Amino acid sequence: MAPQIVALVGRPDSGKTTLLEKLIPELNRRGYRIGTVKHHVHRFEMDREGKDTWRHKQAGAHVVALSSPTGLGVIREVARDQAIEELLDRYYYDVDLVIAEGYKSSALPKIEIFRSEVHKTPLENRDQTWIAMVSDTETASDLPHLALTDIPAIADFLVDNFIAAPVRPTTTLLVDGKPVALNGFVESFLARTVAGMTASLKGCRNAGEITITIRPGPDDAER
Amino acid sequence: MAPQIVALVGRPDSGKTTLLEKLIPELNRRGYRIGTVKHHVHRFEMDREGKDTWRHKQAGAHVVALSSPTGLGVIREVARDQAIEELLDRYYYDVDLVIAEGYKSSALPKIEIFRSEVHKTPLENRDQTWIAMVSDTETASDLPHLALTDIPAIADFLVDNFIAAPVRPTTTLLVDGKPVALNGFVESFLARTVAGMTASLKGCRNAGEITITIRPGPDDAER
Repeated sequence: MAPQIVALVGRPDSGKTTLLEKLIPELNRRGYRIGTVKHHVHRFEMDREGKDTWRHKQAGAHVVALSSPTGLGVIREVARDQAIEELLDRYYYDVDLVIAEGYKSSALPKIEIFRSEVHKTPLENRDQTWIAMVSDTETASDLPHLALTDIPAIADFLVDNFIAAPVRPTTTLLVDGKPVALNGFVESFLARTVAGMTASLKGCRNAGEITITIRPGPDDAER
Repeated sequence: MAPQIVALVGRPDSGKTTLLEKLIPELNRRGYRIGTVKHHVHRFEMDREGKDTWRHKQAGAHVVALSSPTGLGVIREVARDQAIEELLDRYYYDVDLVIAEGYKSSALPKIEIFRSEVHKTPLENRDQTWIAMVSDTETASDLPHLALTDIPAIADFLVDNFIAAPVRPTTTLLVDGKPVALNGFVESFLARTVAGMTASLKGCRNAGEITITIRPGPDDAER
């Protein structure tokens, strides 16, 4: 189930990571699982040099994974920047909220962090996707203002707006990995048809999420 | 589309990673994309200390991702060892072959690497999942034998058995993330129904792979 996502933006060194380091434990204490995503404009190295998975990647593996009973790490090549929606469905299926660090020019709802002790002004090109300012001072903005030091209040804001009553699609349709827009009628038609046609199958009783993937095969060349 | 998978097994220090370092470039040269997966029995650290994503994880994030135009890294908590099938569908959708390093006690087809200069004998509890031996010497086994130094021959073996004519299911049904076994009739029924009911939707013309996910929502409490 894809969670809601909010972006934490701000000038370099405004303290985005430091704020996240305080917010995540506060949200965990309240019982929420948090995912994070950071955008990087250049080639990056995430693995540790010399490890087997690092050696696989260096040798030219397209995807490498390290799997253990407590954690999983996956590093892969991509041909282009991944759309945030693709990331949410595939990687964040079991978290309550994703906080993006950066993604300033995306369409995501944004909370800006501004520290007057480091910068003179907040970001310049604020638009309607900005939903709040977190700062160490009052700013000349009509956005809700949250004090940088009041971590419980910032957590309340996130819970109220993104976790407590999230509006999330209950049906998704991906064609060749890309989401297809569905209106309410089609969404409900797909959901009921899938639920109906799988209901009597062994393993489908009391089903929560159901996913069917079909791929062109030798049997359906006419598709 | 989930690719085929083969495990490379052998005693510690038999040279699994070193062989992979030679095999992956050979398979890449032939135009194939390779994924790898390694199993780890303990807690691991994959990220680099001090990086923002590392700090997010330390703070308690359940999933962290670093996304760039050329690569993507995801590190997550899991509650148990991930079944290899779950990994294949979710993470290896665009590779031609996955080579697992280890997974000795899994049901995966296995190629054992044995170096007589390091060990006296191959692994003890070989079973019917073993399909070939790669070694620096003839071994007393009725399995196909491949010479450790003959990388093209090992690559040929992998291509012939796992890439050239793979048998892969064209329809998959996951309920709460777990695959449901389908017989031919049900597989074909699901595929044709999904293809039929989406055919007239915008964005579904000339569809290759189609995935529908439904989740319990306020509208279908009767499910």
